[in-house]
This record gives sequence, C-alpha cells and structure tokens, in this order.
Amino acid sequence: MTSRFEGVAIIGVGLLGASLGLALKKNDPSLSITGVGRTLASLEIARRRGAVDQITLDVREGVARSRLVVIATPTSSVIPTLDLVLAAAPPDAVILDVASTKEAICAHAQRVCGLPRRFVGCHPMAGSELYGPENGTAELYSGSVCLVEKDAALDRDAREEVCALWESAGARVADMDVRIHDAILARTSHAPHVTAAALALVAGEYGVPAEMVGNGFRDTTRIAESRAELWRDICLENRWALAETLSSLQEWLHRFEAYLTASDGPGLEQFFRDGAAARARVVKQ
Amino acid sequence: MTSRFEGVAIIGVGLLGASLGLALKKNDPSLSITGVGRTLASLEIARRRGAVDQITLDVREGVARSRLVVIATPTSSVIPTLDLVLAAAPPDAVILDVASTKEAICAHAQRVCGLPRRFVGCHPMAGSELYGPENGTAELYSGSVCLVEKDAALDRDAREEVCALWESAGARVADMDVRIHDAILARTSHAPHVTAAALALVAGEYGVPAEMVGNGFRDTTRIAESRAELWRDICLENRWALAETLSSLQEWLHRFEAYLTASDGPGLEQFFRDGAAARARVVKQ
Repeated sequence: MTSRFEGVAIIGVGLLGASLGLALKKNDPSLSITGVGRTLASLEIARRRGAVDQITLDVREGVARSRLVVIATPTSSVIPTLDLVLAAAPPDAVILDVASTKEAICAHAQRVCGLPRRFVGCHPMAGSELYGPENGTAELYSGSVCLVEKDAALDRDAREEVCALWESAGARVADMDVRIHDAILARTSHAPHVTAAALALVAGEYGVPAEMVGNGFRDTTRIAESRAELWRDICLENRWALAETLSSLQEWLHRFEAYLTASDGPGLEQFFRDGAAARARVVKQ
Repeated sequence: MTSRFEGVAIIGVGLLGASLGLALKKNDPSLSITGVGRTLASLEIARRRGAVDQITLDVREGVARSRLVVIATPTSSVIPTLDLVLAAAPPDAVILDVASTKEAICAHAQRVCGLPRRFVGCHPMAGSELYGPENGTAELYSGSVCLVEKDAALDRDAREEVCALWESAGARVADMDVRIHDAILARTSHAPHVTAAALALVAGEYGVPAEMVGNGFRDTTRIAESRAELWRDICLENRWALAETLSSLQEWLHRFEAYLTASDGPGLEQFFRDGAAARARVVKQ
C-alpha cells in the first residue's frame, strides 16, 4: 500500500521544513521524503534526524517524480524556487509554500500557474525564535493554526490534499484571503518583531544588572532572538504594510509621550485601559 | 514562642500585598498579620483567602503595634502612607515598600526618617498582568528576585530583617542602588509596558481574525493587560527616565524605517542581528 502523501519533496530543511518532515514521518513511518537544500551540512542534519530520506542539492532532481512539493525556503527564494519546480515537477504535482508573507508569492503563482491552480499558499503560524533542522520537532505544528489560501482559482483536490497534509501534521487549517494577510500580519507579527528588537537595543545601550530583568522584558523581547536573515526578508517583502504599521505605532507612542510630558494622568490611564481592551479583543475573541 | 515576624502589618492587599501575606503564613501559620486597605471588599477577600488575619481601614490603627510594616499600596500612595506610618508605628518598627519606582520614594524617606534609617526600599520583580487579592498566591515570589535598597544610612538590622522576610517568601535578594534603579527599569519594564499597549492598539485598529494571532503577538503584548491605574502611576513617577527611554526607542524605530524605505537588506539584517545580540546580553548574562 502506498501512503497517502507518497512522493513528497521538501525544499528547504530549516525549522519549518524539517519539522513538517518529522511530523509526516511520525504519522506514517513508511513515507519516503526527498529533502532539497542549499548545503549538504543542513541536509545531512535533517536526514540524520529522520526528517527526510533522500537528499539532493538539485531542485529539478528532487521534484522530478514528486506528487507533493513543499517550498520551505527563505521567503525571498520562494518565487524563483516555484518557477524551478513548475518547470521540473510532474504537471499534476501539488505545490505549497510556508512563507510568512503571501501577497507577492500568491500573485506570482496566479500569473505563472495554469488553471485550476495547483499551487496553494500556506502560512503555518508555528514559528519560534529557534531555527535550523537541528531544532525541528514532529510536534512543532501540533495544536497550531495553518492559514491556507482560499481562492476560486485553486484546484479543489489540490487544496484538499494540502489541508489534509497540515492536519496530519497536527495543525488546524484556517481559510486565508491572501489580499488581507500581509496587512494583518504586519500588525500581529512583523511589527512586534521590530519592536522586540528595538526594545532589546534600547536596554542594551545600558549596562543592565541581571536582577533588574523581569518576565515582562523576557516576554516582550523573546522574538528578538529570531533569525536576522529571515526577518530581513519578511520585512523587505512586506515593506509597505510594515511601514504603515510602524507609522501607526509611532503615532500611538507620540500620543503617549504627550500625555507623559504633560503629566496627564487620565490620558495615561486611558491609554493603558484602551491597550488592555484592544489586546483582549485581538487575542481572546 | 512568638514567630520571627510577629506584628506584621500589610498596607494594601493587592496582588503583591496579599501574596506576601500568603507566603509568610504558609511558612509560619501561627503568624498574625494585620491587613490595612482602602475598601472593606478587598480586605475581606484577602482575609477570606488567608493572607491577613485582622483588617482595618485605618492606617494608624493598623500599624500602632507593628514591628514590621509593608507598604504595598499603589506607587502614588507610598509617600503619604509612609508619613502616616512614621507618625503612628512604634519608633523601632521596620518599614518597607514594594513600589516599581524607587528614586522619589527613597529620597523622601531619606528626608523624613531618622538615622540609621529603618525604612528600606524594595522592588520585588514578581509582578504579573493579574491584580487584586483574588489573584494573590503564596508562590508569587518563589524563585523571583527582590531588589532591596543598599545604602550606608540604613539600619543594618532593619535591612537584614527585610532581606529575611523576602527570603522566607521564597525570593532571592539582590542589592539595589536606588539612584540607577529607575533609569534601568524604564528600559527593562516601563517602556516594554508602553510598547505592549501600543502594539495592541495598532492591532486593534484592524479587525484581526483570531487565527492570524500567533505566539509572537501573545508574548509581546501579554503585559498590555496589566492594571491601567498602576501603570499610569509608575509612568508619572518615572516620567523623565521613561521619556528619555521612549526617545531612544523612537530613534531605533526611525533607523529601522529608514532601512525599510530604502529596501536596505544589510541594514535590516544588521538591525535584527544587533537586536538579538542585545537581547542575549541583557537576558542571559
């Protein structure tokens, strides 16, 4: 019996790619996965950890007989990788990506893929400040949400297969409209990463005694330790929505500063009260 | 046998005061603690939960026979409360506070207390976004750090008793120089609270689907749900250091925005790299 996802290729065996391989193989140890990467070193780690079976540096070779291709490269490489995959994979292959920005990638896919489209944009909301195949785990997606593109142009079977893949990795699938994805993620993820880094930089300007660092600082800056290259790419990719979000953030900070310099107690209190209500609304809906 | 801390009064039975009462009584159930508060409702909750034994709305009455007085009121009330306590408590009583800002409070204590000083400024680094006696627990301080003022003018025995009190509540004591405390806490605690609220406000401007909120947002904004009145007071109390810190934060954000609008990949990458290094330096020293 061949397994459901026979013929999987995972291009990019970082945290997300390696974890997906581990999760799929945990579910079905007989599944054979081809890992494609830029360096043998990380591919070897992924293979040693059991995330992939065969490895290759050549995208064309890796996807030539694949039914399902996962593009888990850095954000900035998704588009050129998709072009390579489309040229080399079987015409009925289902293709997905895992990048944190979606607008440019999905717009490109709309232009270059035939109809109905068998490339499905995905964004698993399961990152971490850790990275690399050495940190991959079969449980990374367990209990997380994976946003899966919803669009009339998509091949229905292809989308169903992609949803089944994420569900078998332990994620809950949620429909995503790629036209609003990037604007919202700028607010819920990209700007928080910038702020975490900025707060760390501000604290780092001082010699801070270890005992003066509490849980508030630890939590607000945890994601500052994420991978710099990854976040460079995400920010470049989503620079207009992120710039708009940072302007809005600065406006709130200016408003706070005005209350502060005026010693406006009610203004400060209302700021924190509105912040608490907004947080509750966004997180606990 | 009388217990070591016999005659304790706790003024203010919010999260910090009630938790201290619970921790002390867990250690020594025979200890009798007087709770002083502004409303009978919260005092009754504190008594029902076992954090205090007797309750009163009258500071003078509550401290008249106390050997140890804990001022756990909101930051803005510490100074007037200290004046009341000094007028009503026995002359050899040891007094401490738990406020998150220290400069103004300790400077006031230097002016109004006799020498050697028996008021010892404290800052237990064990807050939470929760508040009120209903959230107090005997474990709040367990494993946390309590900053305890170190100053040549302090009565040595009084300081030792204060340190023993925190250690019996499970905290580790660290020496604090109150002259640098507020400037550092503006960076490690107060500015992160402002940023958390601002990030929540920015996200709240949009209708954010629940599935587009990940752990990064949850962590960076958790403390936005802290108590607004408390943070109004802390910010007012520490407004100069906080204003300076927010200026520095805005400079870093402006620098980031300049890289972003110029699509300066190396600049963005270096920003995140420096942020990660600063975070590691501050948190993991």
